[in-house]
Order: sequence, then C-alpha cells, then structure tokens
Amino acid sequence: MALEIIPLGGTGEIGKNLNLVRYHDEAVLIDCGISFPGEDLPGVDLVIPDPSYLVEIREQIGAILLTHGHEDHVGALPYLLPVLGEIPIYGTDFTLALIEHKLRERRIRAQLNTIQPGEPFQLGSFAVEPVRVTHSIPDCVSLALHTPEGTIVFTGDFKFDHTPVDGVRTDFNRLARIGDEGVLVLFSDSTNAERPGWGDSESKVSDTFYTLFAQATGRILITTFASNLHRIQQAIDMAEVYDRRVAVLGRRMEQNIEIAIQRGYLRVSPNRMVSARQLDELRDDQIVVLTTGSQGEPLSALSQIAADEYPRLKIRPGDMVILSATPIPGNESLVWRTVNRLVRLGARVVYDGIAPVHVSGHAYQEELKLAISLLKPKYLAPVHGEPRHQAQYFELARQLGYTDDQLFLMENGRGLRIRNGKVEYAEPVPAGRLLIEEGVEGGVPEYIIHDRRQIAQEGMMIVLITVRAQTGDLLEDPQFVIRGFEWQNEIQPELARSTIHEIIGKMLPAEASDYDNVREEVVVTMRKFCKKHLSRRPLIVPIVTEV
Amino acid sequence: MALEIIPLGGTGEIGKNLNLVRYHDEAVLIDCGISFPGEDLPGVDLVIPDPSYLVEIREQIGAILLTHGHEDHVGALPYLLPVLGEIPIYGTDFTLALIEHKLRERRIRAQLNTIQPGEPFQLGSFAVEPVRVTHSIPDCVSLALHTPEGTIVFTGDFKFDHTPVDGVRTDFNRLARIGDEGVLVLFSDSTNAERPGWGDSESKVSDTFYTLFAQATGRILITTFASNLHRIQQAIDMAEVYDRRVAVLGRRMEQNIEIAIQRGYLRVSPNRMVSARQLDELRDDQIVVLTTGSQGEPLSALSQIAADEYPRLKIRPGDMVILSATPIPGNESLVWRTVNRLVRLGARVVYDGIAPVHVSGHAYQEELKLAISLLKPKYLAPVHGEPRHQAQYFELARQLGYTDDQLFLMENGRGLRIRNGKVEYAEPVPAGRLLIEEGVEGGVPEYIIHDRRQIAQEGMMIVLITVRAQTGDLLEDPQFVIRGFEWQNEIQPELARSTIHEIIGKMLPAEASDYDNVREEVVVTMRKFCKKHLSRRPLIVPIVTEV
Repeated sequence: MALEIIPLGGTGEIGKNLNLVRYHDEAVLIDCGISFPGEDLPGVDLVIPDPSYLVEIREQIGAILLTHGHEDHVGALPYLLPVLGEIPIYGTDFTLALIEHKLRERRIRAQLNTIQPGEPFQLGSFAVEPVRVTHSIPDCVSLALHTPEGTIVFTGDFKFDHTPVDGVRTDFNRLARIGDEGVLVLFSDSTNAERPGWGDSESKVSDTFYTLFAQATGRILITTFASNLHRIQQAIDMAEVYDRRVAVLGRRMEQNIEIAIQRGYLRVSPNRMVSARQLDELRDDQIVVLTTGSQGEPLSALSQIAADEYPRLKIRPGDMVILSATPIPGNESLVWRTVNRLVRLGARVVYDGIAPVHVSGHAYQEELKLAISLLKPKYLAPVHGEPRHQAQYFELARQLGYTDDQLFLMENGRGLRIRNGKVEYAEPVPAGRLLIEEGVEGGVPEYIIHDRRQIAQEGMMIVLITVRAQTGDLLEDPQFVIRGFEWQNEIQPELARSTIHEIIGKMLPAEASDYDNVREEVVVTMRKFCKKHLSRRPLIVPIVTEV
Repeated sequence: MALEIIPLGGTGEIGKNLNLVRYHDEAVLIDCGISFPGEDLPGVDLVIPDPSYLVEIREQIGAILLTHGHEDHVGALPYLLPVLGEIPIYGTDFTLALIEHKLRERRIRAQLNTIQPGEPFQLGSFAVEPVRVTHSIPDCVSLALHTPEGTIVFTGDFKFDHTPVDGVRTDFNRLARIGDEGVLVLFSDSTNAERPGWGDSESKVSDTFYTLFAQATGRILITTFASNLHRIQQAIDMAEVYDRRVAVLGRRMEQNIEIAIQRGYLRVSPNRMVSARQLDELRDDQIVVLTTGSQGEPLSALSQIAADEYPRLKIRPGDMVILSATPIPGNESLVWRTVNRLVRLGARVVYDGIAPVHVSGHAYQEELKLAISLLKPKYLAPVHGEPRHQAQYFELARQLGYTDDQLFLMENGRGLRIRNGKVEYAEPVPAGRLLIEEGVEGGVPEYIIHDRRQIAQEGMMIVLITVRAQTGDLLEDPQFVIRGFEWQNEIQPELARSTIHEIIGKMLPAEASDYDNVREEVVVTMRKFCKKHLSRRPLIVPIVTEV
C-alpha cells in the first residue's frame, strides 16, 4: 500500500493543472485545467491533459477537488467529464458557480459538492482540509490531504494578500497548525519563484485607478481578465467615487459579473451598471467601459475596438484605455498590437510598465518562503511552473536549509511514490496533451499539427499524375499545384515535369503499376528537386489517377 | 525648394530603420536595416523596407549614411544595393568593417567611406556632422545634418553611458554646441521611452559576472548578441581574472570577434582564446564558452546545446549558463524553451530577471530628456519605436514644455516637409515591407503568406475532378485530399462527393465545360460544406482534369 502523487499537467509548464493522488486503489484528482496554445500549435483552440491514463484507471477515481475557478484549473472539466463519466466534484461556492454555468451551457451533468474553507471532510482514506488563501479570483483554497502515509498539501495558486479587495484573508493560523501537526510533502505554486520580495496587494491597484480617474476627461475603458472579480470590483468602486456609469463588453465577463453579483462576490450599487446601448445617452466623462481582450485575443471586444471594427464604440482622442493585466507569455505580440492600434486611434493607453495598473496573483519569493516556514514540510515538490520556476524554487528552499534529497522535480507523468515515510520518484505513467479544436471530436492528432506547421513554413506541392490502368504509363504531363511558395522562373515547372517523366519512365511495369511505389518515388524525387532548385522543403502530396 | 524627411522603415515599429532625407532633388538615406519576422510571417527569414519608392527616385540618392552596425540599421544593404546599384556608403570604421565582410560574402561591390566622429563632411547641400554616442555596439554616432532649411539631428540608437566598456564616451559638448547653434527637428530613438530613470551602464554587467564567476565550479557558458562586443569584452576580461580560457561557438560571433580584434575594438591577451576542439583538454573550471543563440534561434549553438544535440558540448550538472541578453519581443517562447531545456539537463541558468546580467543599449526617460535639453530642438519626431513608444516620448516632451504642435508622429511613408522654417506632414509616399526568404528572388508576395497562414490555421482541401472533354460530364467520383485536418466520420467524404456530383449535375453543358466556372462553383460549395460539417474554413484547391 503506497501513496502516489502524479501530475498529469501543470508541471514543467504553466497551465492545464491536473494532479492525481492515489492511495492503493482510491484516487482523487486535484484540479482539471486547460492551457492556451502558442503559435506553435496553429488552429488549436485549447490544450487539455491527455486523459488516456485516467480512462485506464477510471474505476479508481472517486472525486475531483478544485482549488479555484481559473481556466487553468477547471477548464478541462467540460472535455474530461464526457470522457470519464460523472465524477463528484468538490469546490468552493464561487468556483462551483462558475463551473455550473459552463457545464450547463454544454449540457453536461455533474454532481457538485460545496466545500467550506476550514471545514474538513472525508473522502475514503483521505481527510481533506480546505484552507482559505488569496489569489486573483474569489473563494480560493489550498488543500491539505491527510492520508495514511501522512499529510500532503497542495497550495493551489496563491499569494499572501493582507488587504484583499473582498476582505477575505489567508487563514495563516490554520496553515501554521497543519504545519505543526506535520506535513510530509508540499506541492507549491512556483510561478513567481523568480520574483524577489513580496508581491503587492491587489488593493494597491486602486491607488493607481484614483490617479487615472482623476486625470481622465473622456471615457475610461478598462480591460482585465474576465475572472478577476477583485479588479472588476475596484473599477466599479472607482466609478462610484467619480460618479461614472459602468458598461460591460464581452460575453464571458458579463457572465462572470452576473454570477458574482448573484452570489454576493461583487458589490454594486443600484443603477451603477448600464447596457452598452445606454452609453450613447451619457457624457464621455460619465462612462467606464469594462471589456474583455486583455490578452489581445483577436475576437475580443477590445481587439475589435482597437481595429476600429466595433460598431458600438469608436475610440476618439480623449479616451483613456487601461490594460489592467499583464500579457501571458506568448501573447505579447497580440497585446502590443492592440496597444499600438489604440494609440494610433488617439487614445491614451495605460498599461503595466508605465503605471502600476496590475499586480500578480501569485506568491513572490518571500511569500513562497513563508508558506514553507508555516507548513514546515519534510519534502518540497513545486508544481504550476516551468522548469526555470521549479529551479528557482529549489534555490529558495536551499536558502531555507533544504538539501537536494528533499527536493523533487515533478514532471508530467512522473510523480512521487510514498511508502512508510519514504518518498521517491514513481514509475512514469502516460501523460501528455490533447489538442482541442472546437468542432473536432477527441482532439487533433499531433501529425496534423506537424503538417500544418510544415505547410506554413515551407508550403505544399501537389503532384498530379494520370496513368493508364495496369501498365502505369504516364498518360499526360504531370501537373503541379503549389501553395505557400512560387516557382522562381518558367523553366522550373518544365524541369519538374521532365524529372517526373524520367523516374516513371525508368520504372519497370510492375513497379509503375504499384501506385504506392509511384507515390513514394514522386515524394522522394520532388523533395530533392525542391531542395536543390527552390531551397525549400514543401509538403509533397502525390496524387495518382488511373484512367 | 523644400526639405523632406521620410521614414521608410523603423517608425511605428521596431527594426528595419531607413530614413530618406531630401532637399529638392538631392537625397541621402540614413541607415538601411532589417527586422526579424514574427510568428505571423511563417517561413520568412527577414523583413526589409520595400525598395520600390527608392527605385523610383534612384537618381536622386547620393549616399547612404550609417549610424552604427546593428542589423536593424545596416542589414538590408545586401538586399537593397543589388536593386539600387552602387551608392557610396558612409559609416564609422567598425560599422564599415562589419558591412565590408557581409558584402564580400555575397560578392556585392560597394564604395565605403569612413567617417570620424567630430569631423564634418559635405554631401551636396548637406553638411553632415557625426557625433560620438554610446550604445551596445562599438563606434556609434548620431548624425547632425546641416541643411539649407536648418539643422536636423538623427540620434541613431543611443544611451548616455558615462562608463562604457571601451572608454569611448558620448560627446556631450558637441551635442550642446549643435543645440546652441539651433536644431529644427530631432529624430530621436524612442525604444525605451517607457522606462523611467537612467539606464545602467554597460560596465555594470561586470559586477554580476564577478559574483557568478566566483560561484561557478564548472564550465561557464555565456550567450549574448553576436554584435555586443562590449559584453563579449567583459566576459573575456572576467575569464582573464579567473584564469579561464574562452572558446566561441557560433559563426556570426566568431566573425565579429575576429573583426573586432583585428580593428582593435576588442582587447584579448595572447592564448586566452581556444578553439572548441581544445575544450576537451581543459578542466571544467578553466572554461568559458561564448555562444550565439541568446534569442533561442532554433539553429544556434545554444539551442542545439539545450536540445542535447550539439556534438562537441553536452550540458552536465555543475555547468552555469548565463543569458546575457533579453528576449526581443516575439522571441520570448523560444528563449524560455531554451532556458527550460538547459535546466532539465542540470545546468544552473542565470538570466535577466533573476540577476542583472543584461543592460539595455537604449536611452531611458532621463537620458531622452537630456538629449532634448542639450539639443533644444524646435520640433520632435521620435523614430525607432512602436506607436506606444512614440506616445510615451510625447509624454516626456510635454513634461519639458513642448506643445502638441511641436510633436510629429512619424509613420513609414509619411514624413515631414520643411519649407521656410515651416514644418508639416509631407504627402505620403509608397512604403511597406518586403519579405525575404533565402533562395527566393525579390521577396515573398503577401498573398503567399496569407495562404500559408490559412492552411496553418484551417488546413487545406484539394478537390480532384475528372471530366470528359467538351461535355464536362464527371467521369469518376471526385477525390478529396485533405491536409491539416481530418474527416470526422466516414459519412462526410461520401456526403462531400455527392455534393460535388449534385452541383456539376445541375450545370448546363456550357457551364460545365467552362472549367473556371466549375472550379469556382466547387470552391464556393465546399467552403460552405466545410463550415457546416467540419466547423472550419480550409483553403480549397479544385483541380479539374479532362480526359
């Protein structure tokens, strides 16, 4: 009987967090997130953990525990639940409210169980203790799992904010008590392990908003993450102070705000909010617009506004646009394109770097150290970070006196195995990613991505060959259809044609009538041809038609 | 008779700097740079200014003046000179040394004229005065052009470094004198207009190197820009202090170092440098390796080392890798991938953000203000920056008392026209970019990039139709070849086939025998089909074969 903790996502990368915790044959999942594809995955909408191992051990999985409602922790539920079937889900009130909405949209049934920070509950061999922590979305918890092998703690995403916007602070005392009782392994957020000191409180953004609202003479547009209700609260509070009305553009943000108001996570006075249509009736200095698009997402409200293609709102000089967010790695180009377009339209654009309009939701070095000091774990295994973040986390741990045998580098698929207090790396299990494209069942195979990238980089050449059935004689000149590049002169296609004639002419009738063979020869020959004459490696697609 | 200053690159963007200065029919070009393509230009190697307007006014162009030897200021010469024909080039000693080498490699003849900071020279109606400034490459100058309409100044790329590594400081006094004599328009670098304060001196990197070299027990690998000879000097100096030998990996860096040593821009004691082959004979703590690849370029030495595919150097625990550079926007993902791979191989990786191993070569806000204060220009027109940088530069200018009528937002193609002291926007001239792919003559057309991106995002469907000559009857079932996506079930291709049969069946014989018409119908129909059944918009390529 051993305890295993196996990350199936979120380790050695940022995003798609999913951890499997198993004691003998009782397993629970911690979080179930997605990540967003970079430019190296063209056409892919999102990335989820490959569920094949979970399908294999489906009978063992008794519950999914959630730390908070961010997409990189809950976003894969709509994709994994249909594959795995119904599994009871445990999360805090606001986390479940977000999920409920999302699952209902897709008509996915789920059994949702609300947990309360500070109120432990039993799941088979696991006593689960949710502990309140702060982060950039309301109602977050760390999870302590008391197991027959000892206590392990998942911090989830956290920061130690003493002045959170909603007043709901980290339960330091409970963390301390869990630490006093003894923690075997801490699975800590390591996203900001590179950042020295202590991160700023979320409420510090209000200081900047005060100054900016005072300076603004025209409309104020604010964009942030649709789930950052604390930021949205501060924008609405500031609109209250300066007596501006607030309109929301962007479906996901509208939904989140509606849910947050309903559940009491957002305080809004009556008549403060207006619809986009009502904006025309207000003076510019009476307007705050909250929009999605903080990552430069091409279809978002802000991107359309920046492209001057949003019918209801045209930027004009005097407008102030506040990007109250930071570009997620990989989105920089899109974000700066949006900023540049807004500047060109005459807006004053304020973003992180020229004014403190954003703070991070993740613990900085001193906060990470405090978590270690409070929980006093015997072993450390940072998650939710790339190798560079994990490496920096180890540096911090060494400063606190940890030695390398107490530090574990988690990789997706390769976790820990704990037996009789002994912690070691577990045998790897299959782990990977599944590429999701809306409208494609079961994910996009990697070879498809490979083809797409090759065509994007090098272009494509279709070679059309018409042969006489049985003999394999070329009936006509081969045709070439090329995309993604051009012939460099008129001789090249002629030369290509004669090259094909030559190789088919040399084939014995038996070889030429084996079309697989013909196709293969065409690919090999034209690959060489393109390299030599066109300095490129297009995808070669031979098509043999027999008449 | 008017003076015109027209940017053809480098304004409203970072990179490919090229400015046209013309008095009546006498024109000179200031710089001639490239930029590097982002992920939105798949397969493109580099981007140069579209030369078509320059070709049009070729007879007027008397000279190309260069401020310094960075690729974004000189890199387009090998592409533009063959198009424009020989034009005398003026630059400082080291700038010309770099160019000479590059042009010789490509067998391009050029007439190179060495200029000296502080020594004015006459070019037709222009008296050109090069003024020494500091930057992240040796031998940089600002250029003051005394014209019949007054004096204009191009700062080129600059920072005000009081302790440059080569000891060659900015000529503040000459800038002041030019300012006293009166400057009409200042065309200033604005890259770092967002950064408050005063940038660190290049020599501050040595402080960090001291600490890191002291800590290192194994090999030290340092990567930086191949042209940053100041950084390379500091690494070599530190190797001297700690008695390590220095090997260089990467062709471009080897060449630059060779040129710099020859011309006296790099001080290296005898026997300090070793070849890569000699590394095997040294202990790990006797080794410093300088490599290219600071931007995560996939073919660079460092990327190959990180991928564990470099035969001569395998990373092992104990190695320290210093990324003495910062990712150029757009390269972040590649750089972090390299870092993560090096961490996984066991190296300690040090980069900007966890230790001060890099400083910028561009002026911060206080430096930009000092340049304005010294030169006291009547008008300001920031260049070498995106709109967001230009906008921030305007903010600085307003703080110094400039009013909006003194500030000009330059855009590529739209510059300034100055006549009798009156400065106004000039009529736009054609400006744009030319996409360069090695081996492709004359640039890649934009439609090709559009195709590549569409195929990368959505895939491609080839529809093969065989018809009887004259009648246009379908002879066989249409064939589909798809790349970049898959059929979602077996019914879809059947359905697609019958859809094609249907539309061709409905055509009158005259319509069906017009293959252009058939192709168009197939594209429209299959576009609808794919949208409806596959939720995608692949590139549709119809091929009609007649038998």
